[in-house]
Amino acid sequence: MNGSGAGQRADPMKVMVILAHPRTGSFNHVLAEALCRGLWGAGIGVTFHDLYREGFDPVLPAGELSKMGDVEPAVLAHCDELSHCGGLVFVHPNWWGAPPAILKGWIDRVVRPGIAYEFLEGDAGEGVPRGLLAGKSAAVFNTSDTPEEREREVFGDPLERFWRDCVFGFCGITRYHRRTFRVMVTSTEKQRGEWLREAEEFAGGFFSA
Amino acid sequence: MNGSGAGQRADPMKVMVILAHPRTGSFNHVLAEALCRGLWGAGIGVTFHDLYREGFDPVLPAGELSKMGDVEPAVLAHCDELSHCGGLVFVHPNWWGAPPAILKGWIDRVVRPGIAYEFLEGDAGEGVPRGLLAGKSAAVFNTSDTPEEREREVFGDPLERFWRDCVFGFCGITRYHRRTFRVMVTSTEKQRGEWLREAEEFAGGFFSA
Repeated sequence: MNGSGAGQRADPMKVMVILAHPRTGSFNHVLAEALCRGLWGAGIGVTFHDLYREGFDPVLPAGELSKMGDVEPAVLAHCDELSHCGGLVFVHPNWWGAPPAILKGWIDRVVRPGIAYEFLEGDAGEGVPRGLLAGKSAAVFNTSDTPEEREREVFGDPLERFWRDCVFGFCGITRYHRRTFRVMVTSTEKQRGEWLREAEEFAGGFFSA
Repeated sequence: MNGSGAGQRADPMKVMVILAHPRTGSFNHVLAEALCRGLWGAGIGVTFHDLYREGFDPVLPAGELSKMGDVEPAVLAHCDELSHCGGLVFVHPNWWGAPPAILKGWIDRVVRPGIAYEFLEGDAGEGVPRGLLAGKSAAVFNTSDTPEEREREVFGDPLERFWRDCVFGFCGITRYHRRTFRVMVTSTEKQRGEWLREAEEFAGGFFSA
């Protein structure tokens, strides 16, 4: 599989939407649907992955550690989509300042060397990689029960650095938007309705720009 | 299971060591062994969990979302140990500024409300929790291929906030040590030997203090 991502042309009219929430019918599910509607409305194709529903296995096996390793077909299919898509959307709750394990493992397994990034000749992996993703835009939608001020002051919002710098910056994604809807547990139906409209409107605009 | 962690007495002479690395014989494995040796040498008991070897399932199911939810026996056993241990050690590589998914899911599933923290009466989950862990000391040992300066300046080391503030601070752990061994990919055997000695020496001292 090595190298199949390098130099790929992206389809700007195809966006991958990745959802990670265990409860069918959750606000995260409805939010992902709103984002898909926004994309469709703007004439953008969507490949939608509900990782829980697909039973995605997030545990990276030893055989996938190296760039030349054997990768499971289910993971390879995601790698192939990732190589070719024009943009990425992630929808997940903020659990412990990080994505749920099923999504963390999607990053561990799918965002592979040769697909999403590569190191230069002679670099064993300690240097500065070259991002390979052809699609350069990504959006992250989170839900949280932590008020914004407490998140900033007590926890320092490590999810921001995770997505922006560790994942997207590493892979050459240059346009990035993140939005956290909070506080979920005390939100009203009216508020959640507004959030869904905001997400739907955003998606079409951001990815067709 | 709810509440079984509250008010538990810790056994200060028992430390949980949690390892997350896919390759048997990895430096992370040898490092975890060195930490166990250090603990044993100081007369401290160890419960050791190699999450890959145990086949720990990191995917939190919908049924475990609520505090009163049904929790799998394998997870309950970890919860029970967590409630009673005197300290915690985590050993894992830094993957994308976060733990490997198998360990992220251990946090998602085992560090539960009623076991590790609880919210006050009338608080739906948006407020400030009370940490329940009786053991108040934790150590994290990481491996990384990113030089320290690049980690700090480009990625902002979100793992530090994850462990220190999001997990340990939330659960009432007040003594915290973290050490990252780097750059693994260019390290010499001599260097790795020194790291192992450092870890072994540290473990006995820190947890018997």
